[in-house]
Amino acid sequence: VGTGKKNYKSKEGYPAEEELSIEKAKIEDFVGVVIPGGYAPDILRRYAQVNNFVREMFEKGKIVACICHGGWVLVSAGILKGKKVTGFSAIKDDLINAGAEFLDKEVVVDGNLITSRNPYDLPVFCTEIIKKIR
Amino acid sequence: VGTGKKNYKSKEGYPAEEELSIEKAKIEDFVGVVIPGGYAPDILRRYAQVNNFVREMFEKGKIVACICHGGWVLVSAGILKGKKVTGFSAIKDDLINAGAEFLDKEVVVDGNLITSRNPYDLPVFCTEIIKKIR
Repeated sequence: VGTGKKNYKSKEGYPAEEELSIEKAKIEDFVGVVIPGGYAPDILRRYAQVNNFVREMFEKGKIVACICHGGWVLVSAGILKGKKVTGFSAIKDDLINAGAEFLDKEVVVDGNLITSRNPYDLPVFCTEIIKKIR
Repeated sequence: VGTGKKNYKSKEGYPAEEELSIEKAKIEDFVGVVIPGGYAPDILRRYAQVNNFVREMFEKGKIVACICHGGWVLVSAGILKGKKVTGFSAIKDDLINAGAEFLDKEVVVDGNLITSRNPYDLPVFCTEIIKKIR
């Protein structure tokens, strides 16, 4: 989203190439969106286009999955009121203050919303996403 | 707080040496606490001792100052209800959801609570802290 970069590296160095900018992303082209953890969500939530995309995906009943600090984007998308979620413990207060019910579980599925706490939860997190796609 | 390290470097490389751990810090020895920005607050708020220290300082009427992302600690200290604050734009939603009234000003003083948005606000932020100490 406007960074001008084409290539990114994850916290652990895993490379990712930009294939599409958020301005060109169309809701109808996707079955779901996965919001990563680390501090990327602190950057992502600064862009109204990102928050709007996530909210629209959610309202259309498409998969919205997020892990670790990813919940910050859900907060700024304004979709957490009354929702059961989990997330990285450090952002627990932010999720609760946004109206969510916080559960300390490896994965929480509430409708089309799938959330996990940390990288150790990845196996069940990914399993739930795949189940929902099928 | 339990990191075992004695020396730290700021985001810009400025060195800081630990003089005291939070477990040994006594409210009565301080006139105020300044919470820095960057991602340190995301770590700090994970420690109940830090949140408790900040809350007790606040309740005793001592200076509680914070800048940029520092507001996350105020959220977890649970002291923001009905308070006028500012902070880095990315955490605006978290501050509002915690019950604060968010103002987009270089510095906001509400009683003993002093908050600023970003490093460019440092001159007025520091001035308000110094005024309060005098």
